[in-house]
Amino acid sequence: MYIGIDLGGTNIAAGLVNDECKILATKSVPTQAETRSGEEICRAMAELALDLCRENGVPASEIQWVGIGAPGTIDSENGIIAYANNIRFFGTPAAKIFRETFDVPVYLGNDANCAALGEAYAGAAKNARHAIMITLGTGLGGGIIIDKKIYAGFNGAGGEIGHTVIVQNGRPCSCGRKGCWEAYSSATGLINLTRDAMARDPEHKSKLWSVVKDGKLENVSGRSAYLAAREGDELAKSVTDEYEAYLASGIATIINIFQPEVFCVGGGVSHEGDRLMEPVKKLVAGQVYTRSISNIRQTEVRLAELGNAAGIVGAAMLGK
Amino acid sequence: MYIGIDLGGTNIAAGLVNDECKILATKSVPTQAETRSGEEICRAMAELALDLCRENGVPASEIQWVGIGAPGTIDSENGIIAYANNIRFFGTPAAKIFRETFDVPVYLGNDANCAALGEAYAGAAKNARHAIMITLGTGLGGGIIIDKKIYAGFNGAGGEIGHTVIVQNGRPCSCGRKGCWEAYSSATGLINLTRDAMARDPEHKSKLWSVVKDGKLENVSGRSAYLAAREGDELAKSVTDEYEAYLASGIATIINIFQPEVFCVGGGVSHEGDRLMEPVKKLVAGQVYTRSISNIRQTEVRLAELGNAAGIVGAAMLGK
Repeated sequence: MYIGIDLGGTNIAAGLVNDECKILATKSVPTQAETRSGEEICRAMAELALDLCRENGVPASEIQWVGIGAPGTIDSENGIIAYANNIRFFGTPAAKIFRETFDVPVYLGNDANCAALGEAYAGAAKNARHAIMITLGTGLGGGIIIDKKIYAGFNGAGGEIGHTVIVQNGRPCSCGRKGCWEAYSSATGLINLTRDAMARDPEHKSKLWSVVKDGKLENVSGRSAYLAAREGDELAKSVTDEYEAYLASGIATIINIFQPEVFCVGGGVSHEGDRLMEPVKKLVAGQVYTRSISNIRQTEVRLAELGNAAGIVGAAMLGK
Repeated sequence: MYIGIDLGGTNIAAGLVNDECKILATKSVPTQAETRSGEEICRAMAELALDLCRENGVPASEIQWVGIGAPGTIDSENGIIAYANNIRFFGTPAAKIFRETFDVPVYLGNDANCAALGEAYAGAAKNARHAIMITLGTGLGGGIIIDKKIYAGFNGAGGEIGHTVIVQNGRPCSCGRKGCWEAYSSATGLINLTRDAMARDPEHKSKLWSVVKDGKLENVSGRSAYLAAREGDELAKSVTDEYEAYLASGIATIINIFQPEVFCVGGGVSHEGDRLMEPVKKLVAGQVYTRSISNIRQTEVRLAELGNAAGIVGAAMLGK
């Protein structure tokens, strides 16, 4: 039995996971990232793991290891969180601190990488040796799985697939560069494309204005364009077309680099399902480098399957 | 003792390579790609390897294996060349045909990948576990080394780092897409940037016109802009600045994905040496995702060291 922990900015979620990657029980507590130090959060994770065992009648001695998916840059070899965006980790020896409360082998990984590992063990990329996963949320998270293991480079910071420049001097990105894929294909990117389109329609002819709460630009969400497009709105359709073009261009680029069995798409925007995926798959198939080579296998582009559970399952599999 | 073969469109070059990655002897013959079938070329490679042994008094039985670096898409598991651009390979069982003439274990790899493996074993990335190499020639070749092995995806076609779109709807690329990195940062890309700049100077004020043979656009080479820039020409300097900006942007992007110990730059344009590399390194350092994380190691960007020998050495190391 294993425990996987998904450490988020808002909540810490832990799950008991068995050898078949099934989550048997979960428990979560608030992270309190604003008021707690990194050390306190490490201890809170250990206590949560112990509570999860107690509440489910599992002796702590039956836990083979605990895996933790944390946001930020992880030195997994040394059990250290080098840096995180929204939690106070700066070279924090997270594994060591955790083990002072719950003495068990502890493995650390980046949260986006753990989600990818979860999909590779139990989700859309179950049968893939190599897989890529992107998460279309506030940012564009990426995870690289090679030989069923997370690949994160020599310093643990690799896999930042969202921070690949696809437009020279393009939209500003959260990372400080301009024109990153994340700035176009994350949910935030979709919101910005939608707002730009609405700004080009000062007479409010588009249905975009009616699907957005109070018709206010600040209420545009990652769903607005798809909602209005489904009602036949042309401006909204031009937004979803543009969004899908950027997304497909980036996916084809990453496939040209990795040629994984499966390229897996998750996160908020992916809830559009086939409305998003069918056009994107067609665009990708028309762009990948291997499109004209008839006698080799082509990467499958698929929706992620596990949703939020991917992070817990992937973290639990870190020790494999 | 090993034999490494670098199969090019013009010549087949073979080298005897020892365990220390030293090339002890070489021999080459014309490929005759226009008149020979893929099968004939496979047999010619085997005969070249046998001749190389004979001429150097090395019994064929002392050759542990032969490695072949070939242009195109390689199914290395099955010893098949799935497809090559300029040689007639279409699902050709190259290893099997080779062994009918010279019965020795045969390993196949893509030529750009072999060059990267050569640098990883004996050149600029000798001490790196993970390394990326790009070759700035007619195209922009890429090689990915992970755990000292070539990574080429599940179908052997991975590592096409040059075919990553960096400008949406940008310059047409040889692969049929628009805006690939190759279209900007290969020697061909540099030539096109140079020609465009010259076309903006109809009065021939720039020294670019005097460094180019007969002052003709068709005689622009990958060296023209650097030659004129060294003489203080401003237009030429604007071309090299632009070229370096594209190159650095792409390198920073690939580092964000892979975080390798070493990112290695080879090929014709790299002969500019520090004139090219110093500004590029500075630009890369200012753009990589990890630039503001103080407590982790950063990728080193370096010139390739082995030149044309990289392909032979890397091919010889395919069996490691």
